[in-house]
Amino acid sequence: MEQRLLHLCAHKSIGSLLAFSMSLLAVGTVAFDNIETPFGRAERVIGGACTYISLAASYFVRPVRIVSVIGDDFPLSVLEDLKQRGADLEGLQIRAGEKSFFWAGRYYRDLNLRDTLETQLNVLANFDPVLPASYRRSEYVMLGNLTPRVQLRVLDQLECRPRLVAMDTMNFWMDTAWDDLQQVLRRVDVLTINDEEARQLSGEHSLVKAARAILRMGPRFLVVKKGEHGALLFHHDELFYAPALPLADVIDPTGAGDTFAGGFMGWLAHTDDLSMDNMRRAVICGSALASFCVEKFSVERLLELDNHLIQQRIRQFAELVHFRF
Amino acid sequence: MEQRLLHLCAHKSIGSLLAFSMSLLAVGTVAFDNIETPFGRAERVIGGACTYISLAASYFVRPVRIVSVIGDDFPLSVLEDLKQRGADLEGLQIRAGEKSFFWAGRYYRDLNLRDTLETQLNVLANFDPVLPASYRRSEYVMLGNLTPRVQLRVLDQLECRPRLVAMDTMNFWMDTAWDDLQQVLRRVDVLTINDEEARQLSGEHSLVKAARAILRMGPRFLVVKKGEHGALLFHHDELFYAPALPLADVIDPTGAGDTFAGGFMGWLAHTDDLSMDNMRRAVICGSALASFCVEKFSVERLLELDNHLIQQRIRQFAELVHFRF
Repeated sequence: MEQRLLHLCAHKSIGSLLAFSMSLLAVGTVAFDNIETPFGRAERVIGGACTYISLAASYFVRPVRIVSVIGDDFPLSVLEDLKQRGADLEGLQIRAGEKSFFWAGRYYRDLNLRDTLETQLNVLANFDPVLPASYRRSEYVMLGNLTPRVQLRVLDQLECRPRLVAMDTMNFWMDTAWDDLQQVLRRVDVLTINDEEARQLSGEHSLVKAARAILRMGPRFLVVKKGEHGALLFHHDELFYAPALPLADVIDPTGAGDTFAGGFMGWLAHTDDLSMDNMRRAVICGSALASFCVEKFSVERLLELDNHLIQQRIRQFAELVHFRF
Repeated sequence: MEQRLLHLCAHKSIGSLLAFSMSLLAVGTVAFDNIETPFGRAERVIGGACTYISLAASYFVRPVRIVSVIGDDFPLSVLEDLKQRGADLEGLQIRAGEKSFFWAGRYYRDLNLRDTLETQLNVLANFDPVLPASYRRSEYVMLGNLTPRVQLRVLDQLECRPRLVAMDTMNFWMDTAWDDLQQVLRRVDVLTINDEEARQLSGEHSLVKAARAILRMGPRFLVVKKGEHGALLFHHDELFYAPALPLADVIDPTGAGDTFAGGFMGWLAHTDDLSMDNMRRAVICGSALASFCVEKFSVERLLELDNHLIQQRIRQFAELVHFRF
């Protein structure tokens, strides 16, 4: 473990660490959230898939090229902070006189269950992503959960085939945009979805059979996120099971999936190694970042990390599953 | 891994392998089951916790001292077969003119869910376990899921404190026999239950908090079985997460928990090493046996195994979670 973690720990500043990283582009929402959990509530806090992806990935790769849209109600101080934390905001559209995407949700004692209380699309309703010239040769691309048409629009603007394209999606698009979704699937390398979504997408209950079916739709890699039960990585007939770290208190699961994607793609862009061994490491990096994310509301915990904390958490994952006969 | 697995593979016959094992006593039902799953149905097949425990453990330790009760409707050929497979039946009561315990259940597409269609206690209604003299110094004891009073009666007849006592239980006893259950808990070393039972027993939703509460009730080790999501082993502040092997087809989950307990206790009785490292191995042995159990109806698959198959399966578990930085 020591050798590889040198990537993370031998350098004092994240800047120097990232000198040889590939470029990472992330598409998704930058938004406001209202969140209720059994442990409290947070109002109009910073959220959005792209925010979580960017913050998580920033521990491995900088800059993270953001493609998103906000209204002029979004605090400039937050944008400045994101920039300080490695976000390249050239591809962030700011719409004058419009409001940012807003989501309100409530979680229950079983934090795997949640209700959406309100969704205001606002600027997202007519989002047409435009890639600045400087983004068009990005080597790693993370398509956050958005309408498949927007995901396609991003892929269409890339000038070279990236080294790796990953996408997230959700059941809503399976219900309403099946054909577009299949088109995106044919053009990506990695799909990250949760277990229920994998079952719906494939029509198979067994995750092993679901994976076989989904890997025939296009992606070479499938990551099935199972929340507190960990994550599975499928590739051909190979299979990796990353546990989730059992935590005494999960305060707010919002963004955990996007944080996973950010850690996963951040590690890959940083190492530029697509071997199955390194994909396994990427899943652990994603899981480690996600395990931090849920410890506080919104992106709060993601703002507090450093290489040492991440390295320590990765060691906990290694100890958690360690056995030797 | 090679070294330890020598235990399993260097010997041609199970008999020679077990020369230095400790004794294992198993209490539980020997029964008939009717089982319906989305993959078919099986009528009046062999079941019962003690049957599964004994068959699973027999791959690591022989004899397995059985404490149970059946009616005279039970096929002698099955008893003979169990004996051939290492069961010591001296503690098996056969009640003339009475019927064996019978359970009928139905599983759904999500095999974690099941309905009990029928339970006929029959001989179990007045079961008073009697330990033959030859059993009373057993070193390893597995108390299968039975009324806590029966579990206590077994413990009361032991002449020496065993090296390790493990117990299984279920929500029904938490609802109807709380005080007795607490009494058993104070006298055991290991509790194996599923996640919902752990939550009910502790009143805590977080499994980490549930484990802390349960470890204060008596057991030094807690195994939380999460079905297709694997198993967690808690001991003080140490934590081990064993995945479940994702399977394309789970044909019949009946007895998987008991099979886990059998593999787990069988390994421990065989190795007589209660270090946390060896407890981790025991959890993997239990998980490996359980992963076989669900591949066919009833105990069918457990009758077909050998050291080589088990060793291979354990390697699959190691590969499944392997990562290195």
